[in-house]
Amino acid sequence: VRVSELGEFGLIRRLTQDLETRPDVLLAAGDDAAILDLGPGALLVATVDAQVEGRHFLHGVASPAEIGHKALAVNLSDIAAMGAEPLWALVSLLLPPALEVGELDGIYDGMRALARRYGVAIVGGNVVATGGPLTLDITVLGRARQGRTLVRSGGKPGDAVLVTGTLGAAAAGLLVTTQPAPAGAGLSKDALERVRAAMVAPSPRVAEGRALAACGVVTAMVDLSDGVAADLAHVCVASGVGAMVNAGALPIDLAATEVAVAYGRDPVALALAGGEDYELLFSVRPEGVEHACDAVQDAGGVATVIGELTAPGEGLRLRAADGAVQQLEPRGWDHLKGDTGDATDVR
Amino acid sequence: VRVSELGEFGLIRRLTQDLETRPDVLLAAGDDAAILDLGPGALLVATVDAQVEGRHFLHGVASPAEIGHKALAVNLSDIAAMGAEPLWALVSLLLPPALEVGELDGIYDGMRALARRYGVAIVGGNVVATGGPLTLDITVLGRARQGRTLVRSGGKPGDAVLVTGTLGAAAAGLLVTTQPAPAGAGLSKDALERVRAAMVAPSPRVAEGRALAACGVVTAMVDLSDGVAADLAHVCVASGVGAMVNAGALPIDLAATEVAVAYGRDPVALALAGGEDYELLFSVRPEGVEHACDAVQDAGGVATVIGELTAPGEGLRLRAADGAVQQLEPRGWDHLKGDTGDATDVR
Repeated sequence: VRVSELGEFGLIRRLTQDLETRPDVLLAAGDDAAILDLGPGALLVATVDAQVEGRHFLHGVASPAEIGHKALAVNLSDIAAMGAEPLWALVSLLLPPALEVGELDGIYDGMRALARRYGVAIVGGNVVATGGPLTLDITVLGRARQGRTLVRSGGKPGDAVLVTGTLGAAAAGLLVTTQPAPAGAGLSKDALERVRAAMVAPSPRVAEGRALAACGVVTAMVDLSDGVAADLAHVCVASGVGAMVNAGALPIDLAATEVAVAYGRDPVALALAGGEDYELLFSVRPEGVEHACDAVQDAGGVATVIGELTAPGEGLRLRAADGAVQQLEPRGWDHLKGDTGDATDVR
Repeated sequence: VRVSELGEFGLIRRLTQDLETRPDVLLAAGDDAAILDLGPGALLVATVDAQVEGRHFLHGVASPAEIGHKALAVNLSDIAAMGAEPLWALVSLLLPPALEVGELDGIYDGMRALARRYGVAIVGGNVVATGGPLTLDITVLGRARQGRTLVRSGGKPGDAVLVTGTLGAAAAGLLVTTQPAPAGAGLSKDALERVRAAMVAPSPRVAEGRALAACGVVTAMVDLSDGVAADLAHVCVASGVGAMVNAGALPIDLAATEVAVAYGRDPVALALAGGEDYELLFSVRPEGVEHACDAVQDAGGVATVIGELTAPGEGLRLRAADGAVQQLEPRGWDHLKGDTGDATDVR
């Protein structure tokens, strides 16, 4: 059996079953980040994520600064999804020997600018040569207070499901950079630039994540890396619940809608399956929705109710604008199989 | 300018100059690991290191379990070099899609067995596909007490220089696995297996490192990844001192000597420039040598005085068995240039 046949999630299950642990490991593999007990009330939150040239970024599409920005941003997003404060980053570089130093300088510029924005210090790293593609593998460490972290497993039937920001712009960015626009598409320059920027330089929702962890009404949280369908499925599996998403309630990015229409794609499908939004998806006790929305707003963001958690037997479902209900394929990005991966066994 | 021309150390200098920091970063890039302030008396020690197929390990030479063992061991060695206790590991995998899952299982077996031996929990990680070689990129986090970490910069002229264990076996292992034995070499099977094992499955000196940090007489410490000459040069640069190494005092591994002789190589050169011993090299106040040696012995190891730190103007020197003194080329392994790198500007 090859790793591509097992797929990302099958492989992770296989590698992480029966791992030995320590009493100070409060949460290991299976969420956005690990939670580690530092002693009296203090938690360490740790995550690692790699960006591989040709798979996660393309020279020519993203500038060096954008490549560096995104490599750090995806990790900050994982820390944000735990409701923690990112503090420190370790940068591991796998470099083709012929890489131009000036390009690496640009990558570091982007990474450092983002680190500065979030008060994160780059405290170490490693450099090795590789015969393969340029790869940036970044570990980010954050801190949280005991009782103030959000994991995937706390959702209950009846909880509202919300997302921050808008959906689908990164997926639309991938569309416009990998497929030529249909003749007469007439896409606006603004829309093109907005979806490209969403893809290559996402903004991690760090302040929103901390505000949601502090507000006390959020029951589960995840960041949107694989797409709403796949990431909500992760929450459903971890929480042992089902979910209903209302298509008409999805805050689809306006530029993403413009692109989807121009390309003859369904904007809802783009928003659900596209991935890489790096927004936060979270569940909230029904009476706490207003409080959670206020918390996100105070942190400078916006949150939208997109559905609710349901009984576990109901799986993951989508209610279309016309009221028709269908099972939602929990498909999203599988880093080993490509986009055909069955991201979960929720159904 | 390509990164290979700048070299590993030139590149690290370039990327780490002017990095912004935070008050809780006590030591950033430039040592074996970063030291981070967790609050009242507690320190977090963090390091990351990648092993790339074809560069750091070869299928056929190392078993999958040995590949996994070494990928974790090199990180534990960095934590050991700070005198810290390793606690948690994050494993980032870059996988060729066609890799056999059974092989990855073997790699994990080796990693988990070593983790168990040192009480380390694998708490998370990441999996991505790569078009390049199989790469294991591991972050290890450890804990230390304030005032109980050892860095490279504390050495003073007159301090004794010691190493744990023996030297040269890993370099000899590389020799026997990459070059056919000369006709009539008559190497013993024991020697061949010992040097191969030293190369593919090093034992990080975690207990020794903690004992040395606790004993109070050690002034600087580093692990031997690049070779005695290069790593001692790192200490000299960081501490602003020179060093004299006594060739006759080097605890050269007996099997390494057997291999060196068979291949017509100088055992002293192998021990000084070979690298990958993953022993600890440390400096000790002159009156503390016996105390430090006892501490290492109590931790189950052995330490040997190999020279002393000298005035900074004297550079890095080698006193041969016949008393002749020569400048020692601080050459070692440069991960970007290969083994021709000038590892430091100590001279």
